[in-house]
Amino acid sequence: MPNIVYIAASLDGYIADRNGGLDWLHRIPNPETDDYGWNAFIERIDAIVMGRNTFDIVCGFGGTWPYPCPVYVWSSSLESVPEEYAGKALLIRGSVDAVLAQVQADGHSTLYIDGGRTVQSFLREDVIDELIVTRIPVLLGGGAPLFGDLPAELWFEHVETKVFGNALVQSRYQRTR
Amino acid sequence: MPNIVYIAASLDGYIADRNGGLDWLHRIPNPETDDYGWNAFIERIDAIVMGRNTFDIVCGFGGTWPYPCPVYVWSSSLESVPEEYAGKALLIRGSVDAVLAQVQADGHSTLYIDGGRTVQSFLREDVIDELIVTRIPVLLGGGAPLFGDLPAELWFEHVETKVFGNALVQSRYQRTR
Repeated sequence: MPNIVYIAASLDGYIADRNGGLDWLHRIPNPETDDYGWNAFIERIDAIVMGRNTFDIVCGFGGTWPYPCPVYVWSSSLESVPEEYAGKALLIRGSVDAVLAQVQADGHSTLYIDGGRTVQSFLREDVIDELIVTRIPVLLGGGAPLFGDLPAELWFEHVETKVFGNALVQSRYQRTR
Repeated sequence: MPNIVYIAASLDGYIADRNGGLDWLHRIPNPETDDYGWNAFIERIDAIVMGRNTFDIVCGFGGTWPYPCPVYVWSSSLESVPEEYAGKALLIRGSVDAVLAQVQADGHSTLYIDGGRTVQSFLREDVIDELIVTRIPVLLGGGAPLFGDLPAELWFEHVETKVFGNALVQSRYQRTR
């Protein structure tokens, strides 16, 4: 049951700027609308677990719902998922272990774990198996960090690195078990 | 007058672990003793500016002095450079601008800026022109950070990325001016 992180970050490790802004993610020209490996990635995925902040951001995008698989919104503060997302998103509560147990009981085994605080919680429990980080060539100097404190260091094996548009560096790592 | 950073960091952006330890930097096997581009890099360099912590670490390595060019130790607390390093290292004080003015007046133009707090100070003044960061495939979860707060975001152009030993990812960036 691999749990996979696929995320973009600044060189100094932020996933949103000081104002929560994401404009810098799209500053690099992409004339051939490369998907940066997104479609190949999302085809591998059975379900997504994301925090409430990330869910709110995705809802704010408008347009077509971007995910072909169930989204579990991991939140203790959200009362319920808005009706318009019924059939797309489900509320889930509890510990990291409880979340994984429920998602697995629902028949999903390859999970996309998304959102800074969610990723940090899953890393603290050492249940992330694969890490795909795309570095944007900017130092933001502050903002929402991708990584947080850990009780022990976690080693990974480098699988591959791709450079997109001579600008974005995407490295894929697997947890050394 | 390019000011260049060449440094190794964990995936979560630390240059030393929580105890100041550097063992994790050498955990990746290097059977062919690849220099990871070090010799080609240091040949470009006229002089080095490093903080006192980094100087103390280098002094602690023992063995042959590793640098073929003058080292400026940027410190307000160090009284003088120990006698055994005379002719190798010089004490320098003052602001980032004052340091650069003095080193330049001494005839040096391509500088290697080393050490976490020194790099952070130089980035805050936006006087870093080139950034060469080698990512070690580990999350340390705490320690001495490479990057710090900045008054404004700094954009870079990606120059090249090399993977060493299918483990270390070294990316070179130039400041977009």
